[in-house]
Amino acid sequence: MTSPLVPEPLTKAAFAPFGEVIETEDAEVRIINQGFAKRFHGLARAEIGHGAEAIISIFRATRRPSPIRIDMLERHPLGSQAFAPIQPHDWLIVVAEDAGAEPDLATLRCFYARGDQGVNYALGVWHFPVLILADAQDFLIVDREGPGENLREFFFPEDAVTTIAL
Amino acid sequence: MTSPLVPEPLTKAAFAPFGEVIETEDAEVRIINQGFAKRFHGLARAEIGHGAEAIISIFRATRRPSPIRIDMLERHPLGSQAFAPIQPHDWLIVVAEDAGAEPDLATLRCFYARGDQGVNYALGVWHFPVLILADAQDFLIVDREGPGENLREFFFPEDAVTTIAL
Repeated sequence: MTSPLVPEPLTKAAFAPFGEVIETEDAEVRIINQGFAKRFHGLARAEIGHGAEAIISIFRATRRPSPIRIDMLERHPLGSQAFAPIQPHDWLIVVAEDAGAEPDLATLRCFYARGDQGVNYALGVWHFPVLILADAQDFLIVDREGPGENLREFFFPEDAVTTIAL
Repeated sequence: MTSPLVPEPLTKAAFAPFGEVIETEDAEVRIINQGFAKRFHGLARAEIGHGAEAIISIFRATRRPSPIRIDMLERHPLGSQAFAPIQPHDWLIVVAEDAGAEPDLATLRCFYARGDQGVNYALGVWHFPVLILADAQDFLIVDREGPGENLREFFFPEDAVTTIAL
């Protein structure tokens, strides 16, 4: 066990190496629909490659027991994956940089997301499965469907397993 | 002015000619994340064609004055457009079938969507801009960005203008 991860605030700048933050703050705004709507434009882009589709799904997550054990990461080598919370509960993100075919566990970071912030993991980014703080929370998901194996999992050696300091 | 449109409940079957309903009901469910999440899979598919991207935006809508005047429709000839409510307020959808380069106004229909239902307008489907019942509501949008003109608008002759019976 290593020392617990300390969550840092989710910001576009801090998260840039891992993907996009889906939030209205600092977005390009277009007035549309005869003035009855604002479009916060292009907050994220699906990377799905040729011969595949961007699909919309809903994830219904339940809270993991405390302390939240971080013992694996996954990645989607063929496509991006966006998570946008439907209920406005704060939630958590754990990511790491890539070191070839495995994550570099020395770069493990935890981000604390507000309930009005989503993220789009860039293609191939190592991340922990969706982590919530409420008992249950739904997310709108935009990811890839198509041929090929789009899930890799990496399980930590026991001495690298950690938790989150909350 | 013609007689007001009477909203009908939004269901997958009734909406099928116009696109997909984004809801967990009757969806394909996959248990993921070591049992800590359910994936309601592939509720909608982005149709964006080649040389374009599926992008994620947020629309912030404000309520139109009552009675809501339906005097135009728009369509996106190059891509689908999905609307998923972030706050769970009921909302409205107005669509019509296509009659060549114009909507067939004899087919105008209004759907009443629950706050946990989104829709994905199929490529080219004539629809009224986002219509809400609360004072304000945000939607997550998945649509197309790319070359080409992806907006057509059709303004009704005055005797075809209608409202919604609420």
